[in-house]
Amino acid sequence: MEIDLNADLGESFGRWRLGDDEALLPLVTSANVACGFHAGDPSTLVRTCAAAAAHGVRIGAQVSYRDLAGFGRRFVDVSAEDLYADVLYQIGALDGIARSVGSGISYVKPHGALYNAVVHHEQQAAAVIRAVAATRAELPVLGLPGSALLAAAAGAGLRTVPEAFADRAYTPEGTLMPRSQAGAVLDDAAVVAARAVRMARDGEVVAVDGSVVSLTAESLCVHGDSPGAVAMAGSVREALVAAGFDLTPFVGHG
Amino acid sequence: MEIDLNADLGESFGRWRLGDDEALLPLVTSANVACGFHAGDPSTLVRTCAAAAAHGVRIGAQVSYRDLAGFGRRFVDVSAEDLYADVLYQIGALDGIARSVGSGISYVKPHGALYNAVVHHEQQAAAVIRAVAATRAELPVLGLPGSALLAAAAGAGLRTVPEAFADRAYTPEGTLMPRSQAGAVLDDAAVVAARAVRMARDGEVVAVDGSVVSLTAESLCVHGDSPGAVAMAGSVREALVAAGFDLTPFVGHG
Amino acid sequence: MEIDLNADLGESFGRWRLGDDEALLPLVTSANVACGFHAGDPSTLVRTCAAAAAHGVRIGAQVSYRDLAGFGRRFVDVSAEDLYADVLYQIGALDGIARSVGSGISYVKPHGALYNAVVHHEQQAAAVIRAVAATRAELPVLGLPGSALLAAAAGAGLRTVPEAFADRAYTPEGTLMPRSQAGAVLDDAAVVAARAVRMARDGEVVAVDGSVVSLTAESLCVHGDSPGAVAMAGSVREALVAAGFDLTPFVGHG
Amino acid sequence: MEIDLNADLGESFGRWRLGDDEALLPLVTSANVACGFHAGDPSTLVRTCAAAAAHGVRIGAQVSYRDLAGFGRRFVDVSAEDLYADVLYQIGALDGIARSVGSGISYVKPHGALYNAVVHHEQQAAAVIRAVAATRAELPVLGLPGSALLAAAAGAGLRTVPEAFADRAYTPEGTLMPRSQAGAVLDDAAVVAARAVRMARDGEVVAVDGSVVSLTAESLCVHGDSPGAVAMAGSVREALVAAGFDLTPFVGHG
Repeated sequence: MEIDLNADLGESFGRWRLGDDEALLPLVTSANVACGFHAGDPSTLVRTCAAAAAHGVRIGAQVSYRDLAGFGRRFVDVSAEDLYADVLYQIGALDGIARSVGSGISYVKPHGALYNAVVHHEQQAAAVIRAVAATRAELPVLGLPGSALLAAAAGAGLRTVPEAFADRAYTPEGTLMPRSQAGAVLDDAAVVAARAVRMARDGEVVAVDGSVVSLTAESLCVHGDSPGAVAMAGSVREALVAAGFDLTPFVGHG
Repeated sequence: MEIDLNADLGESFGRWRLGDDEALLPLVTSANVACGFHAGDPSTLVRTCAAAAAHGVRIGAQVSYRDLAGFGRRFVDVSAEDLYADVLYQIGALDGIARSVGSGISYVKPHGALYNAVVHHEQQAAAVIRAVAATRAELPVLGLPGSALLAAAAGAGLRTVPEAFADRAYTPEGTLMPRSQAGAVLDDAAVVAARAVRMARDGEVVAVDGSVVSLTAESLCVHGDSPGAVAMAGSVREALVAAGFDLTPFVGHG
Repeated sequence: MEIDLNADLGESFGRWRLGDDEALLPLVTSANVACGFHAGDPSTLVRTCAAAAAHGVRIGAQVSYRDLAGFGRRFVDVSAEDLYADVLYQIGALDGIARSVGSGISYVKPHGALYNAVVHHEQQAAAVIRAVAATRAELPVLGLPGSALLAAAAGAGLRTVPEAFADRAYTPEGTLMPRSQAGAVLDDAAVVAARAVRMARDGEVVAVDGSVVSLTAESLCVHGDSPGAVAMAGSVREALVAAGFDLTPFVGHG
Repeated sequence: MEIDLNADLGESFGRWRLGDDEALLPLVTSANVACGFHAGDPSTLVRTCAAAAAHGVRIGAQVSYRDLAGFGRRFVDVSAEDLYADVLYQIGALDGIARSVGSGISYVKPHGALYNAVVHHEQQAAAVIRAVAATRAELPVLGLPGSALLAAAAGAGLRTVPEAFADRAYTPEGTLMPRSQAGAVLDDAAVVAARAVRMARDGEVVAVDGSVVSLTAESLCVHGDSPGAVAMAGSVREALVAAGFDLTPFVGHG
């Protein structure tokens, strides 16, 4: 039994530090690295990619709206043409840096508000996928099962990697409860670790109404932008290992 | 006899248009394409790279300080570490876009104040060259003969391509007169065209004091950000062709 | 009979020029000056404010989403808290510059996608108005009649100034046809000038279905970002004068 | 005996937090608040200005080069014309926000690389001062004694406020040792507190060569961007109070 653990890294910018990349890298198998549009100045990206490569962690391009002030967490009604070009630009930029440290990009995952938008927004989802297909058609796309993004990726012949969130509440329909609602984020490490194991082993999660929802997850997303989050990521990892899982990147076996 | 003609392209940004890429592309053989730090939003870069590829014009990465408001024309005392990463980022970004249109980057040339700085600034010159060497060591570097940049490139085993400026006044030492001085930029198309031929054919230029200066130029730089500049680029091209030159990119024969 | 003519100015940025401020200033009575978030670097704003003051044209703060790459023309789902602060910041910035040339801000008008959003978006409209009220409660707000913006302004005790667009097609409901639809922008100067007179004199416009729609306009907006647009602004002005109108800023009589 | 304590505040940006404004505000009497060019998104500035006003701390505009990625710590060879406009813009922006919380700007102090540049750079110093004089000629300017900045301020008839740095090593000439040199920053709280008292009481400091240097300081600058720095600011404050000083803003007695 294998499962991938992914987390967001490289989210510092210039003088500002965010997250604890060094603490997360021994825990995860895939790093969603910022590409400069919501976070990640080039020097940060060099350091993050070098550290990821040193830990054998796969580097994914976490593409975003162009919105440093909003950290990519605000929907932007960007045209498909501009979003297509923005994604091309970000993938290339991070790939150049990843190659400079002897690695490269292994997958693409949208960030923040773009991630949420491409669950339903067909045009933005298609624009992201067209950009991946136009330069790096061999790269898998990481996203929410059932999203417009993964549908577009599959339609374009790209490999899709569905993920689940052990620390997020799910609706009975299998979508994430919005962060704006109370209870959307779980903070009990034992509960979250148990959910992670059930997601990975049984392909299911208990929704907010108590119903059991089926889901497919080749990767689990953990967070790391606070000390508590890093500890929780450690708990999730331990529980998965204890349940017999081999933590392995979804992309090959490096 | 062969010579390359290079010009700056892709310098629009969002709503703002600059230069006449469509008019220049039939005239030049190499396009110094902005990489987003002084100009060139991603959609502009997609259009510019596609047009360059359609005209058989080589695409160079015109890397810059991060300075949109100053168009990269202000010296920034950026550290070598940050400049190294900034150059990696820009090369990768443009290369991703160039590959999306079936082309790629063929060379690197610094822009604006960075171009001027790396004539003498050893640390910044070395940072730029380390970045090229770390990802794309096969790429030639275009710059001023005698510059710290080309010295660093040669030291790193990169191919160097010296260029000359037919419309700029030269000092007796063979450097460019600063734009801030009167007479630094020549605007008589016939004079400029004749200087271009002499540079390409004889490897020399008449300096501001009347002395004849030797220079080596594998490429001539023309400007295109005004209607008059495009006309002058046309005159330079015609004069070179009339003098028996084959206008050919310095990178292979594509 | 009096009417105000307003137009967007100060929309250059750094090296990039946009619009013909010098040609527009003799034609209009109110200048919607960019505040740096969609356009307008500080040096441009100094020049624009100085020229407006020299022509006796009133300066309005044209506040925008923070989106240089999109020229403020893309909806951004910014929180009310952040939009409030962004508007405060922009008003203060432009006012400091306007005062440095012996003038000041006389009104506030949202730009681009924010202008369109606050027709219906209650929260963003309220955030803009709270910002005006918190610093410059004496300033009128220029906007679309019937918009959430003007309703919020009235509710906060601010003066509201409704405007109309002589060169835009109207729906039978009195709203603007979206630019994405064919025929949304009229380009026949004679037709546009006649519409302007009818708007100003009779308070009505012929909608796309031929019906006559009532509207209240204390100001007419003209465009100036192309040579044709400047000529059309001139035609509108001439037609209004010929119809007996006194072109006067809606703010006092300066 | 009175002395002012100033520190940098409002240096967060969007998602990124920096410094501990809440811990510093009870300790200092003047807050150098970022203006958005090196740090300080508008929402941060609203919060910081509101907190400063609540603590009775004076708000100063800490104007900077336009350089978010470099936190304003890199010299930029900006023209006097552009720097003048950039300073106008920043002062106005912060003042609008400060007035929205019932306060206002009480002084101006350059930040980072600009602070260092205007010690010697006559043109940039003059540009900063012209901007202050053009809008808010009543505001004092805080800077290094003997700097070109304070000379220009005095020449323009502005009030000058010289400051000293208790935690920085001084050269025998009375200038700060560059941060790039070992020993430039002192970290022993007792030593720093004693230096602060000697600076305030006796107008002198022991330089790196052991000589005693005279200096005039109406304000002492403390740092607050780390837990240790906040503790040291507290030690400095306690030592000054114990030595009989009244900690009072240099601007009036609000």
